[in-house]
Amino acid sequence: MVEAIDFRNAMSLLTSAVNVITTTGISGHHGFTASAVCSVTDTPGTLLVCMNTSSRSYEHFVDSKILTVNVLAAHQQQISQVFASKLSSKERFEHGDWSTLVTGAPVLAETLVSFDCKIDQIQEIGTHAVFMCTVVAIQQNSAKAGLVYFNRAYHQVGHQDTV
Amino acid sequence: MVEAIDFRNAMSLLTSAVNVITTTGISGHHGFTASAVCSVTDTPGTLLVCMNTSSRSYEHFVDSKILTVNVLAAHQQQISQVFASKLSSKERFEHGDWSTLVTGAPVLAETLVSFDCKIDQIQEIGTHAVFMCTVVAIQQNSAKAGLVYFNRAYHQVGHQDTV
Repeated sequence: MVEAIDFRNAMSLLTSAVNVITTTGISGHHGFTASAVCSVTDTPGTLLVCMNTSSRSYEHFVDSKILTVNVLAAHQQQISQVFASKLSSKERFEHGDWSTLVTGAPVLAETLVSFDCKIDQIQEIGTHAVFMCTVVAIQQNSAKAGLVYFNRAYHQVGHQDTV
Repeated sequence: MVEAIDFRNAMSLLTSAVNVITTTGISGHHGFTASAVCSVTDTPGTLLVCMNTSSRSYEHFVDSKILTVNVLAAHQQQISQVFASKLSSKERFEHGDWSTLVTGAPVLAETLVSFDCKIDQIQEIGTHAVFMCTVVAIQQNSAKAGLVYFNRAYHQVGHQDTV
């Protein structure tokens, strides 16, 4: 076993994309910023998202069984910060332009790409849950550079002005 | 549902760290390059790794129930390519300097960080398996820039020469 602090320090070196994960239901829209997202298989298109079960919006994701993974572009650092802040769910969605695809979960404009998903399976592991999700629709946008998080700071990957 | 090709094209925009995942057993060392790795929880330190079950080394990971996640530094692109090539397991490990920590799975020198793990659980989903792994030891090195994969190309994040 390793100490939690040592694990977190080491994990800060695993570069990840920055994503805003959203859902919607009878209590409105909910969303949070997440780095723990990865591809599982393309047959059928499946990804997974890890979420802290003590997060205030966790139950909304469990109830709705839908989510969208919005993969942020390099210019969307402010949106990342909004969805990791103490703002209420309602206040968070006042930032950015939102639409929907198939499930109804909020889809952010100007991302690199957004994956609209059904949550097929939820597995709780320690403090977190792993959502296994089937992708039902994809919206790819024109952004060419991605926002990433490495060593506790934002960075960008790719070039903003090239095609 | 979405087409596999559309899913793969969209997923190419999800930036990820580049990792060499290794194990060892009675048939020797085995390893492959993987992007689908993410942190799950820090209590206890847990990460997950996705692997194609048709990979020739899959059964070795299932049998050994140990693995090391070697998170590549910016200068290790060649090692990434070696572990994604058609070289045999034996030939792959002729590249790089290797040691061990606790489990005995091969630990690569000069990475950003390496996580030595026990595989606690294996879940098959479509063509892939998700390994849930408890981290039992960590080796952090002095590299300051990471190797990442975005839009089907290698990039680096962070600065190679700063402390």
